[in-house]
Amino acid sequence: MTQRAPSGAAVLKPDVTAAIIRAVLAELVERSYARLSMEGVAKRAGTSKSALYRRWPTKQDMVLAVLADISVPMADVTETGDLRRDMRAAAESMAAWLASEPYAKIIPDLIAEAHRTPALAEAISVSLAKPRRAQLRSLLTRAIDRGDLPADTDMEMAQDLVAALIYWRMVVRQAPAEPRYLDHVTDTALRALRATGTGMREA
Amino acid sequence: MTQRAPSGAAVLKPDVTAAIIRAVLAELVERSYARLSMEGVAKRAGTSKSALYRRWPTKQDMVLAVLADISVPMADVTETGDLRRDMRAAAESMAAWLASEPYAKIIPDLIAEAHRTPALAEAISVSLAKPRRAQLRSLLTRAIDRGDLPADTDMEMAQDLVAALIYWRMVVRQAPAEPRYLDHVTDTALRALRATGTGMREA
Repeated sequence: MTQRAPSGAAVLKPDVTAAIIRAVLAELVERSYARLSMEGVAKRAGTSKSALYRRWPTKQDMVLAVLADISVPMADVTETGDLRRDMRAAAESMAAWLASEPYAKIIPDLIAEAHRTPALAEAISVSLAKPRRAQLRSLLTRAIDRGDLPADTDMEMAQDLVAALIYWRMVVRQAPAEPRYLDHVTDTALRALRATGTGMREA
Repeated sequence: MTQRAPSGAAVLKPDVTAAIIRAVLAELVERSYARLSMEGVAKRAGTSKSALYRRWPTKQDMVLAVLADISVPMADVTETGDLRRDMRAAAESMAAWLASEPYAKIIPDLIAEAHRTPALAEAISVSLAKPRRAQLRSLLTRAIDRGDLPADTDMEMAQDLVAALIYWRMVVRQAPAEPRYLDHVTDTALRALRATGTGMREA
């Protein structure tokens, strides 16, 4: 993902790269993707525009590289084998992620901009969405294996349910996702998926 | 919502206002809220910046007024009294809305910008969200009255479900909401809400 422009014998100093990445994130948070400029990032990072261009040929490439850099360590749900508990943990992880800096401000912008910039849509999918979906998919697959979910569970819908409800509530409606709400999302999703044997109030 | 700056004896010509509104929408679609400028709107509308400022003191006021102007005629689901059919119609209406110009491009931007601009969040809530939610709420209330939904149905969750899934799929994941998908969303929502007597494959 990190495309580097030809730079002769120039060495890219890691501490400068790190400062640029922090500056890109800060500019995305404060000013949005649309308003972010190479000049603003360079100034904030205490470096030159040419230092940016030595690393990435365009603003888009720079943002994509930063996205690839920050995204991976987010999904860290420990699976217990109890479907209710695991779904609740996935819901909580999603809510925590959407509430955390810099994501809270960055994600809605990137989603909007992705409708103008296909490469950004692809980067969001690869860097942010796929790791989370893969994790959820394996959790759901094991729940099917245990018989806690029907064998014909629609995996796409199952992966969408919790994320969709939490995104809608937190990002679109700007409402808080309190513990009680996360319980409720979990109940709703399990019911929609016809989960059994998970201590449902109604099976 | 339409705030007008003091304008002495100036008369605001309706055809100029209409041209400005069209220009605002076109700029929002092409350039996003962040990149929209009074100058760009004036140029596109074939008028002057002062014609804009006579109507609205700021870009934000202008966009809020345009939002208030375009939003109302969107929600037009005819209720049949068959919960499955009505939920399916609500799902289809939401999908058609999110796929339509100018909303397809504008909505994600406004949602993103609303996290920086509370007045925009309020305008989205009042102009775009509340009419749809009110309609869905009355549909659900009558379904409860008929006994098609439990008396203790969580109305917030019930109103969120279909919208959340469709928004997530179309706006966040940029996937199409085909008729088959809308059927599936309807099934999923009815199951989650413990609907009865609506021809469910599984009650």
